[in-house]
Amino acid sequence: MSSNAAEYQFLNKVFDDLFPICRSISGPGLEQSIAYFSQFMPLTMTKVASGTEVFDWTVPPEWHFQRARLWGPDGKLICDSQVSNLHVVNYSEPIEAEMTLEQLQPHLHSIPHLADAIPYVTSYYHRTWGFCLSQQQRERLTAGVYKVKIDSHFDEQGGVPYAQTLLAGESEREILLSSYLCHPSLANNELSGPLVLLGLYRRMQQWPRRRFSYRFLLNPETIGSLCFLSQHHQHLQQHLEAGLILTCLGGPATNLRYKASKRGNSLFDRYIGKLAATGDWRMESFTPLYGSDERQYCAPGFNLPMGQVAKTVYGVFPQYHNSLDDKAFMDMGSVIDSIDQLEQLLLSTEISGKALNLKPYGEPQLGKRGLYPNINTPINRHTSSDQLLDGRQELNAILTVLSESDGKTFMLDIADKLKLPLASLRGVIEKLEQHQLIRFNTGKTL
Amino acid sequence: MSSNAAEYQFLNKVFDDLFPICRSISGPGLEQSIAYFSQFMPLTMTKVASGTEVFDWTVPPEWHFQRARLWGPDGKLICDSQVSNLHVVNYSEPIEAEMTLEQLQPHLHSIPHLADAIPYVTSYYHRTWGFCLSQQQRERLTAGVYKVKIDSHFDEQGGVPYAQTLLAGESEREILLSSYLCHPSLANNELSGPLVLLGLYRRMQQWPRRRFSYRFLLNPETIGSLCFLSQHHQHLQQHLEAGLILTCLGGPATNLRYKASKRGNSLFDRYIGKLAATGDWRMESFTPLYGSDERQYCAPGFNLPMGQVAKTVYGVFPQYHNSLDDKAFMDMGSVIDSIDQLEQLLLSTEISGKALNLKPYGEPQLGKRGLYPNINTPINRHTSSDQLLDGRQELNAILTVLSESDGKTFMLDIADKLKLPLASLRGVIEKLEQHQLIRFNTGKTL
Amino acid sequence: MSSNAAEYQFLNKVFDDLFPICRSISGPGLEQSIAYFSQFMPLTMTKVASGTEVFDWTVPPEWHFQRARLWGPDGKLICDSQVSNLHVVNYSEPIEAEMTLEQLQPHLHSIPHLADAIPYVTSYYHRTWGFCLSQQQRERLTAGVYKVKIDSHFDEQGGVPYAQTLLAGESEREILLSSYLCHPSLANNELSGPLVLLGLYRRMQQWPRRRFSYRFLLNPETIGSLCFLSQHHQHLQQHLEAGLILTCLGGPATNLRYKASKRGNSLFDRYIGKLAATGDWRMESFTPLYGSDERQYCAPGFNLPMGQVAKTVYGVFPQYHNSLDDKAFMDMGSVIDSIDQLEQLLLSTEISGKALNLKPYGEPQLGKRGLYPNINTPINRHTSSDQLLDGRQELNAILTVLSESDGKTFMLDIADKLKLPLASLRGVIEKLEQHQLIRFNTGKTL
Repeated sequence: MSSNAAEYQFLNKVFDDLFPICRSISGPGLEQSIAYFSQFMPLTMTKVASGTEVFDWTVPPEWHFQRARLWGPDGKLICDSQVSNLHVVNYSEPIEAEMTLEQLQPHLHSIPHLADAIPYVTSYYHRTWGFCLSQQQRERLTAGVYKVKIDSHFDEQGGVPYAQTLLAGESEREILLSSYLCHPSLANNELSGPLVLLGLYRRMQQWPRRRFSYRFLLNPETIGSLCFLSQHHQHLQQHLEAGLILTCLGGPATNLRYKASKRGNSLFDRYIGKLAATGDWRMESFTPLYGSDERQYCAPGFNLPMGQVAKTVYGVFPQYHNSLDDKAFMDMGSVIDSIDQLEQLLLSTEISGKALNLKPYGEPQLGKRGLYPNINTPINRHTSSDQLLDGRQELNAILTVLSESDGKTFMLDIADKLKLPLASLRGVIEKLEQHQLIRFNTGKTL
Repeated sequence: MSSNAAEYQFLNKVFDDLFPICRSISGPGLEQSIAYFSQFMPLTMTKVASGTEVFDWTVPPEWHFQRARLWGPDGKLICDSQVSNLHVVNYSEPIEAEMTLEQLQPHLHSIPHLADAIPYVTSYYHRTWGFCLSQQQRERLTAGVYKVKIDSHFDEQGGVPYAQTLLAGESEREILLSSYLCHPSLANNELSGPLVLLGLYRRMQQWPRRRFSYRFLLNPETIGSLCFLSQHHQHLQQHLEAGLILTCLGGPATNLRYKASKRGNSLFDRYIGKLAATGDWRMESFTPLYGSDERQYCAPGFNLPMGQVAKTVYGVFPQYHNSLDDKAFMDMGSVIDSIDQLEQLLLSTEISGKALNLKPYGEPQLGKRGLYPNINTPINRHTSSDQLLDGRQELNAILTVLSESDGKTFMLDIADKLKLPLASLRGVIEKLEQHQLIRFNTGKTL
Repeated sequence: MSSNAAEYQFLNKVFDDLFPICRSISGPGLEQSIAYFSQFMPLTMTKVASGTEVFDWTVPPEWHFQRARLWGPDGKLICDSQVSNLHVVNYSEPIEAEMTLEQLQPHLHSIPHLADAIPYVTSYYHRTWGFCLSQQQRERLTAGVYKVKIDSHFDEQGGVPYAQTLLAGESEREILLSSYLCHPSLANNELSGPLVLLGLYRRMQQWPRRRFSYRFLLNPETIGSLCFLSQHHQHLQQHLEAGLILTCLGGPATNLRYKASKRGNSLFDRYIGKLAATGDWRMESFTPLYGSDERQYCAPGFNLPMGQVAKTVYGVFPQYHNSLDDKAFMDMGSVIDSIDQLEQLLLSTEISGKALNLKPYGEPQLGKRGLYPNINTPINRHTSSDQLLDGRQELNAILTVLSESDGKTFMLDIADKLKLPLASLRGVIEKLEQHQLIRFNTGKTL
């Protein structure tokens, strides 16, 4: 079996195992999902206690949910969370009651323009209960007495968890890769992100070298990232080079779409900006209006260099936040393609930053290192020394990289100056690193 | 009587009372004019003694002038300062003598291309005397012996005054509004400025709140502003947010014309720059070649954020600096229109600067403040919570203002980002101020 | 004899005296050449000992060369360094041997596409020996036994010299003018640079004033400038305002060509940038790929404001680095034209930098200095005082220069603002300097 096929099979099973679990922003379903990932990544889980003030927010009580059912006047089961986790409004309070259809209606949710879809509805900070069902099903409801029963309770001694691990590299400068885990039984807009995160972890573990350290993070959206930030924002201010929120990475679109960080000058902002100019990526500016956890990281008090990457984007596809966002819509091939594209991005980003010339006083004597012709004649001016396969072009690249590596200039812009794609400089860069003529990550890039 | 009509009547009387007084850069006429304004604004007058060195200048002796007369060979009175203050060269030394027309000619001033106009001529720093008359009158003069008599003297114990008052606001950051008072019997290019200053004072006194403090200043042009600067420039360096020199605000032009400060980045420079782009204002860059007291404030040693605002501009209208610049040319309706436009400008400028998000760590929890929907369903993504009259647009404005209020970004530019005029954000801004989510004037804007 | 003719005659003799000397990057020929220049400029020579580590380089042993000869199978002399210094590979090790043509060939150098030219070949850091000859001559060589004899030796106790002198001016800020001296018997690409340097020295010695101090430097290329830098780079970081490497200044091209410093913001970068925009100069950006000693000065560890000026540029003309680069190709008239153009450049550069207004608090009282009309009437608004020959235009220039001389603005840009060439401001600038209203070089320009 090829490694590709093995990866496909592996991720497929992960998906199938995780999809049925009823996750929320807290509670057993979420913690069970984190534990599942811990089998493959050495995640450390931290739990912030309910009631803790996290910046402007208060960590809510932990939601323990068993089952939600709605019976019709004829005693038939209309909604059952064991059929779909989406049938219950996430964070519903417990209830057992009988009521007329009229009394019930305010607690029902459907999508008028999508007859078959069960919507995904949450009410984390406003205590209520409710059922979600398809518009079709709802329209068939008749007058009469309905029975509702939601088995759940709130644990004030609980908390909101997040889980992380670090893949150490040569530098203490970090790249943060994060996805969220809190939507039950949704595919593109839930599991695709953690799947890509896991896939990247398994590949990057194998890289022969990592110039950066890589932090992998899973948390429930919004409150989870705020909990993480409350305990790590000083560390991030100090060490974070750049980061990505991974979301919606399994849909039918082909190109990745990058939403830049608010500061707009991270390594990803710069590099993907160039990729977008050639049409390889789509890119948009930061906005606080829609999105995911980057809204928290980019808030003015933090202003961290976190962008967000997606493929088939939240809010644009009709399957968004309803039961049509399933495995068929997501497609595992698309998930693996996202992993491929992001791995290439990360490999290039490693050499896109600011390098420092370690022999900066005049030109280093390249001749003694076999990088420059030792005999100078009028006819070898336009050629490199014999050892150099690609002739004068490599020498030009060497001289240019040395001249520009002042610790303030991005290798990305040096490549532009040479009119070469960054990836094609990898050989020259590694040669200069081996001769200890340049070094990356000697200072902050931002 | 409407408040408009009352204001018109009030300013009309102020004009009529002040026009006949023979002002100069020092002396009784000037001090009497300042005293007149003191009835309506709590002005503090300061006098800098004659002989004081003020930067590169020396404060001149105080000019005490009674009357100037010129008689023809036939004994008839040709010029009499009691007919027009402009007949005498301002700062004339005393003289009583007889002389031929030939001897007299170097002391006569007229305007060849304006047959009817008496020019306004000054000689503050070079001791001389002279008469001003219309070209028509001058051409009728015949050979013979003329008699001249100028009753004036110079008081070396006198000084140059300026007068100011502060309308305190929530912040110690100040807006300086200044006009000059030194031209006798000129209208657009003299009294229009102080009239607008007084009109603004009377209105702004009534504002329910003032985010800035407002300093109102009257001084003789050039030497008066240098006297003020010599005693206040350190205070201004510390507290001045921005300021306007008010001049020529009563003529027939409709749009206001703003001359930017030399630094070009004050709140007025920025805001009026936007207004000028839409054609509502005219705007030009700073020049040291022509203008008023902004030439002193913007000198390189100060470089204060002072611009200048005018309507029918000095040097462009033929009535400039001669007797044709009278009340009819000025027009009191135009003065009041200037007050209207400037009051609107100041109201918007109050919210054009840099605000600071007071809950900057992540997004504040808007839901608990009724600013965000508490139940999240796929169908309310594009709507605001029910309490919000203007729906999603207000929520977008709130999120954008919070995201951008990093203490470094101008609200003016945030409005641009939202593609909304600044004034339309007033409601959102005040709501966020009430919820203590943002605050203006927490740091220097410049 | 006109001074022009005298200068021509003088430089002509200098050329003829220096051309036959066999220079290299070290050794008697080089030191003899420096001694020759010392007759006309008070040069101080410094020698950096062989074996010294200079940044990434090691100073090579000193090359002592007497004579190199190559005899054919028929015993006839084929190459003799006494015929042309170029016949021997510069820095050849000693040898006395007999060998076949086949054995000899790897030690012969010629230029296939230039049948008549003897190439100039060096091997400073790789020990070898060789002869250079024309392609024509080489093709006539027949099989047989050749005799080679090179009389030379390496002195490990020697060193690499450089020589400098300072022409002091009003400021300690320095302009560095440098050329290299190491190519034997080449004209445009060797002697033209030192000739222009000497010509400039003799003229600038006579200037009535020098606002900057001027340092004149001669050194062997690359290693010589690194030796100079190793002992002076801290001084240069502190005092260097800008500088020029002079090279290839005698060829047939008419316009000068400037290669900017890497930082791109020196006085020369700025000023020549404007000249290039009007077509008077050609200009190109810094590149580390080709050039002369500016490659060392602009290395990232120094980043000094050194540009390079040339006329018929290295690498472009076919005579480059071979025996066709002789006095006829160079042309002494072109050398003198380069001196003329550079002297004008330096005169303007003296007033192109940042001046400081010494009376910066408001406008200085120009009237008391005769620079402003003392009587102000509506009809002299557009005229200057009677003393001013060029009327209002001079007053405008005075006011603008005073307003902009904040110690941060380049006079070059002030001239642009006035839409006047910088040179036309010289009169106004000197007048303001005489009145002690402005002063240049009160702070660093960079």
